[in-house]
Amino acid sequence: MLTINGQKVHAIWMEDTMEVKMVHQNELPHREIIFTCSNYRDTIIAIKDMIVRGAGTIGLAGGFAMAQAFWETEKKQLSEGFIRNAKKEIELSRPTAQNLFYATQKVYEAGIKNGTRAAIEQAQLLAEEDILLTEKIGMYGNELLKDGYKILTHCNAGRLAFIGKGTALAPVYTAALLNKNPFVFVNETRPRSQGARLTAWELQNQKISFTVITDNAAAYYMSKNEINIVITGADRISQNGDTANKIGTLEKAICAKYFNIPFYIAAPTTTIDINCLNGNQIPIEERCPDEVLWQTGPTKYGDIHTILVAAPKSTAFNPAFDITRAELITGIITEHGIIKPNKDNILNLLSKK
Amino acid sequence: MLTINGQKVHAIWMEDTMEVKMVHQNELPHREIIFTCSNYRDTIIAIKDMIVRGAGTIGLAGGFAMAQAFWETEKKQLSEGFIRNAKKEIELSRPTAQNLFYATQKVYEAGIKNGTRAAIEQAQLLAEEDILLTEKIGMYGNELLKDGYKILTHCNAGRLAFIGKGTALAPVYTAALLNKNPFVFVNETRPRSQGARLTAWELQNQKISFTVITDNAAAYYMSKNEINIVITGADRISQNGDTANKIGTLEKAICAKYFNIPFYIAAPTTTIDINCLNGNQIPIEERCPDEVLWQTGPTKYGDIHTILVAAPKSTAFNPAFDITRAELITGIITEHGIIKPNKDNILNLLSKK
Repeated sequence: MLTINGQKVHAIWMEDTMEVKMVHQNELPHREIIFTCSNYRDTIIAIKDMIVRGAGTIGLAGGFAMAQAFWETEKKQLSEGFIRNAKKEIELSRPTAQNLFYATQKVYEAGIKNGTRAAIEQAQLLAEEDILLTEKIGMYGNELLKDGYKILTHCNAGRLAFIGKGTALAPVYTAALLNKNPFVFVNETRPRSQGARLTAWELQNQKISFTVITDNAAAYYMSKNEINIVITGADRISQNGDTANKIGTLEKAICAKYFNIPFYIAAPTTTIDINCLNGNQIPIEERCPDEVLWQTGPTKYGDIHTILVAAPKSTAFNPAFDITRAELITGIITEHGIIKPNKDNILNLLSKK
Repeated sequence: MLTINGQKVHAIWMEDTMEVKMVHQNELPHREIIFTCSNYRDTIIAIKDMIVRGAGTIGLAGGFAMAQAFWETEKKQLSEGFIRNAKKEIELSRPTAQNLFYATQKVYEAGIKNGTRAAIEQAQLLAEEDILLTEKIGMYGNELLKDGYKILTHCNAGRLAFIGKGTALAPVYTAALLNKNPFVFVNETRPRSQGARLTAWELQNQKISFTVITDNAAAYYMSKNEINIVITGADRISQNGDTANKIGTLEKAICAKYFNIPFYIAAPTTTIDINCLNGNQIPIEERCPDEVLWQTGPTKYGDIHTILVAAPKSTAFNPAFDITRAELITGIITEHGIIKPNKDNILNLLSKK
């Protein structure tokens, strides 16, 4: 678990009071704060503002928000239209993460069929399942890691992104437990720098050795034989194995292929969207240019500032994700084992659910 | 030429007073300031602190500094040891830029052979030659650009980096003159963000259309057929065509190859180091981790701050350059035309000097 001000917590959870609590990921790495959402609209804001982020954690936030909506309907005697509306609002909060749709749908179905109590139980069950999933991903992925391996990762697909051990970092945590001394190259992951800010914070929190590098430097270290394997998470995996993940993942996959370095995606089967035949059908979220042009952080005196890191009056394009074709992916590390990404293997994998 | 506070200037020049003047590139894009170096040691500091940067501009700074050293020796009746010492100091100021060694050596030889006046004339001649070189690079490179082409560039290899039209941007300027409406994708170029800061400033200064993108987003736009050609500069080219350039160039070259997009290096033959047999022999400068971990810029109120953009207590690796193998380079655009990079072509090219 994560240690936030000395307290052991998951990245997100829902209390019996129906408050959804989460590690405030926009305040990390500089302040460790738990953010509380007392109703489903608060939880949607937390998703939109990226107070909660990461495929799995967003998924749970969606499920919890759906459960909160059922609870609010019951408490305030609202109409069924309120529920349907809430579902739509939740699903629109972030367009790319498959886990959001998966969890929201699961909780919605349970609530419609068996009432508010069932919706709440389903939401909590999804959280418990995620912990187990990431444990298994860690065990399967660990088999790829030899003693002293150097692992390149992109963005944050650790305990902040998926409760339990995370996805891309789960094999690292399992290997560390087995005293294999893994070392992680952390891509900064511009524009939001979740690598430099979140993964670097998380790996310190978990006492794993690492260094931050700019997104430009990964191929350099690959060319120097300094990287043994690349593992990233996924936001959505299509039926043929094409994978949407944080912008820049595609570059790392292409470079890994050029240098014959294995490139793995770590994700549970809940990240698979069987309705997407291939990567072209996955919508890509375009975010605000200001994320590229401005950066926020503390000075050495601790006061927080937002500064311009480009020429004044510049414009920027800011796609949040890219699609890595299946042919670039050595394997997908799932809770049922590692598969080579193609339609047959993915359909076979889903039949194990 | 560049417009600095309404004045038309080159990125660097030496006055008859033997003052070396330069656009203060650390103050750009937020303040347009001319920095003055009244002796060779000032000029070395300007190189080390990257007040002057860019392969050609550093080269001229080295040549001017060498001329200043001859002048100081004569004026203060110093020993020949002073000159030899100055040459070593100048050469040690930045380890990767070939043009620095080329220009310093040229001016040194002229001065040793024919005295201070000859050294000064040689240094000024190098500047005049650079303007002509970049004009020719622009003309040859322009032939690669069709109407409305979208060009990806990395770092800054424009008028700030090479006086005259620059190198990588010279074809863009020539195409713009011919009303071909080029559009430039500007890689941010972390860690020092010379793309977002300098190239974006320069393209506005020169009225060329562009957008800034993060270094992570280039492959995404390549995959969308949004990029027609990649052109970057070079800091050193070895005998076989392997090229050292700003960290991240290698990633762009690998991605361009994957998507069958032409990848060109634009550089004059002075960037070729015939003594380097291949890229393995080019030294790579490792710079301070703080460049990765901290960023400096103005808030919207105009006050400048330096903020932490990573988790506190993180470490970072910070190589300043990488090596792009000749096999990844479609062609090198030089003042003598465009060549496919290999030993024969490069030796043939140098025989034209």
